[in-house]
Amino acid sequence: MSTAEQRLFPDWEVSRWFNADAPVSLTDLRGQVVLVEAFQMLCPGCVSQALPLARKVHQMYGGQGLAVIGLHTVFEHHDAMQPHALEAFLYEYKIRFPVGVDQPLEHSPLPATMLRWQLQGTPSTLLIDRAGRLRAHHFGSIDELELGVVLGRLLAEDGIAAQPPGPVVHSADEGACTPAACPAPSTGR
Amino acid sequence: MSTAEQRLFPDWEVSRWFNADAPVSLTDLRGQVVLVEAFQMLCPGCVSQALPLARKVHQMYGGQGLAVIGLHTVFEHHDAMQPHALEAFLYEYKIRFPVGVDQPLEHSPLPATMLRWQLQGTPSTLLIDRAGRLRAHHFGSIDELELGVVLGRLLAEDGIAAQPPGPVVHSADEGACTPAACPAPSTGR
Amino acid sequence: MSTAEQRLFPDWEVSRWFNADAPVSLTDLRGQVVLVEAFQMLCPGCVSQALPLARKVHQMYGGQGLAVIGLHTVFEHHDAMQPHALEAFLYEYKIRFPVGVDQPLEHSPLPATMLRWQLQGTPSTLLIDRAGRLRAHHFGSIDELELGVVLGRLLAEDGIAAQPPGPVVHSADEGACTPAACPAPSTGR
Amino acid sequence: MSTAEQRLFPDWEVSRWFNADAPVSLTDLRGQVVLVEAFQMLCPGCVSQALPLARKVHQMYGGQGLAVIGLHTVFEHHDAMQPHALEAFLYEYKIRFPVGVDQPLEHSPLPATMLRWQLQGTPSTLLIDRAGRLRAHHFGSIDELELGVVLGRLLAEDGIAAQPPGPVVHSADEGACTPAACPAPSTGR
Repeated sequence: MSTAEQRLFPDWEVSRWFNADAPVSLTDLRGQVVLVEAFQMLCPGCVSQALPLARKVHQMYGGQGLAVIGLHTVFEHHDAMQPHALEAFLYEYKIRFPVGVDQPLEHSPLPATMLRWQLQGTPSTLLIDRAGRLRAHHFGSIDELELGVVLGRLLAEDGIAAQPPGPVVHSADEGACTPAACPAPSTGR
Repeated sequence: MSTAEQRLFPDWEVSRWFNADAPVSLTDLRGQVVLVEAFQMLCPGCVSQALPLARKVHQMYGGQGLAVIGLHTVFEHHDAMQPHALEAFLYEYKIRFPVGVDQPLEHSPLPATMLRWQLQGTPSTLLIDRAGRLRAHHFGSIDELELGVVLGRLLAEDGIAAQPPGPVVHSADEGACTPAACPAPSTGR
Repeated sequence: MSTAEQRLFPDWEVSRWFNADAPVSLTDLRGQVVLVEAFQMLCPGCVSQALPLARKVHQMYGGQGLAVIGLHTVFEHHDAMQPHALEAFLYEYKIRFPVGVDQPLEHSPLPATMLRWQLQGTPSTLLIDRAGRLRAHHFGSIDELELGVVLGRLLAEDGIAAQPPGPVVHSADEGACTPAACPAPSTGR
Repeated sequence: MSTAEQRLFPDWEVSRWFNADAPVSLTDLRGQVVLVEAFQMLCPGCVSQALPLARKVHQMYGGQGLAVIGLHTVFEHHDAMQPHALEAFLYEYKIRFPVGVDQPLEHSPLPATMLRWQLQGTPSTLLIDRAGRLRAHHFGSIDELELGVVLGRLLAEDGIAAQPPGPVVHSADEGACTPAACPAPSTGR
């Protein structure tokens, strides 16, 4: 097995998908940066922090070389977090990116992918680069600025971003001072 | 003048520096990504959002190929925002990165750099790449994830980041479920 | 029926209790101010705002003339919000005040108490005074200051708060200026 | 001196007022609950927490038996916090309630009222009841729910609130589930 292949991150094992017309695999996503959010629908930190951030990443950068995938890694309260309950949860929380149910195992409270990837709990955020290699793995809540910097770095590894774009100019609303900004008097600009 | 030189972003004009042993210029910072935060000490959006974010960027990434520079661009309430007041402000708000006072002009309420750069007000956040070119310019409050992604992209433009680092693994505390995370039962890992 | 009785707010109808040794009734709580939080475990606004606030009220004022009662008023996704799922939810979210399951009805998606009280949805917050009368009814997220003022008014209606207490003096930590406070230099106090 | 008089809280000593047509005294405000916010314009905790909360109290309850008074108790950086700077600050932060400048003293860094009231620093929040007695005194940031409960209790001490008002009913918007609330299906109400 070649060195490069050895470094490929192993795929997930999923029993059922939501928000996807067909099963998704890491291999299918090669060429994109992939953010995997491993969560449980009854994990408070997942609901209040990790999933809203994954949703924001998906809304702002999904389809721009970045894929966001949810993985429902149930390791406790199995009866309360069956797929039909997850479906209601995804609907109410307006989660639109693909979410896979981590394959349950008969003799383990932890599901298959969770064991394979040695996840420590939920939420766990994993970042896989365009070449399929694991580049970041974080258990617990993640800082938004730090996640952005890592994403920006991984997105830049595309071999085609040579030419700098012109500066991006955004503006606040004009007029009087607001809580967000104080516009300057016009100077004929 | 060559094309490359034309695209260099013009330097600031500063009458006095705080948190710096000697005057700083954009030219001195060539090779680093530079985040310039143009602010006024009595601008609510600067105090509540832009400066805390600039401070966070400085604490997390300062000295890692990134420089954060504050620019006090006073265009109103000039009497209340003189350098001695700014000094007290920087002390109380624990701002440690270099801050320059934008050069006041006799016949304009707007100071010199603000005019030169055509800033629309405060806060204005500018990002200058390692080659000295303006790459982003934002007036008003800025989203933390978005700022992170742009910073990550600019930091990756160093020509030396070819080899992927091993995955970064962070962990939440072990033990019972917390508001931030639910640790899984140990499986002999 | 007497006027006074007419104004009494009708009791809830509950099929099962959590966090309670025995069934609880509004009549049992006469003499206390009662905050009822009607919620669903898969309602995002309940999870992010109403329940944390009810929990805070319970932690700060529970047992001081105030009772906090949760009411699980399931009107959608019935399969996903059965009592065993609610039990896991209450455990993970560390909700310790009594929570009753609003009695399901055969021919209505809305449960019995929800119909009786004409609730508009979840979260709904109801405040019942010491005499058993409904005094406030709010659908949607509630402002913390406003809730506090209403609670304070209702708690003051006890006929025994005649003597003013001495002033309550709280202190921030001493020492240098913090994000929260600037201590003054000592003056021999 | 009578017992009652001894318990009256001593008045402030102010050199200049903003947002007031004429000097204000505690005696003038007898009959109202008075919230005094002692602050400095360059105190981070005052700007980020105490003043926004005082402003919110003023907007929601000002003129309903409650007066909010700011007191600029400068004890450091005196040159940077002169009245003309305070004026610009109050304008930019849209503070509309009366603000008095605590009388500076020649031989003390602490101003007159701060010494008289033995304030420990800024922010300090004081609550004076309708009879002119100090009822709460808090140094540092204050919890919004707790402030509400104390305000509600003090506002209820008016001797005229005997009859309970009808229930206050507020509603969230109708329609689909939002981040704030899930409306129930209509049942002919």
